[in-house]
Amino acid sequence: MPTVRIANLEIDPARTEGFVAALRTVTQTSVRVEPGCLALYAVAEKENPARITVFEIYQDDDAYQLHLQTAHFKTFRATTDSAVRSRKLVDTVPISLAAKSA
Amino acid sequence: MPTVRIANLEIDPARTEGFVAALRTVTQTSVRVEPGCLALYAVAEKENPARITVFEIYQDDDAYQLHLQTAHFKTFRATTDSAVRSRKLVDTVPISLAAKSA
Repeated sequence: MPTVRIANLEIDPARTEGFVAALRTVTQTSVRVEPGCLALYAVAEKENPARITVFEIYQDDDAYQLHLQTAHFKTFRATTDSAVRSRKLVDTVPISLAAKSA
Repeated sequence: MPTVRIANLEIDPARTEGFVAALRTVTQTSVRVEPGCLALYAVAEKENPARITVFEIYQDDDAYQLHLQTAHFKTFRATTDSAVRSRKLVDTVPISLAAKSA
């Protein structure tokens, strides 16, 4: 069963644009280069674009731990953490992960 | 750009098991039979299994509206709504939807 984590972030509104650009890059890089990083879906709330959710799917817990140790993720955190006003990470148990085949 | 919605649900703990079974069925059916329903990821919080998130990806707004009108979704709502203590639906703007090719 995959490991699914949800990150709920609130960003400094003055820095949301730069944060979003960095988040776009790190999510796409992670899925491309990490074999166990299956999907990273990043969205902003329509009503408040400074509230961002990342829905993260890894092959297993090991893949998630490897993700945290990658240079691209560490750089992302080091360069963007000061823009994050709050961060809530939710560990989950998958009920159903239904997706169309590509 | 796909339409992404997040549903945050809190279920009556006494009815969570039945709700989860119904949710598993309706999400899998929706992705299988609706051409524009791209993915429905349902997860429970590890710390509180009565708190459920559904991360929903549709091809566009029309596909989402069609989903709401399907018999399987209407039946799901009619048979499970009384088990739902609270429901928060969040409309979003996608930032990045990166996933491995199947």
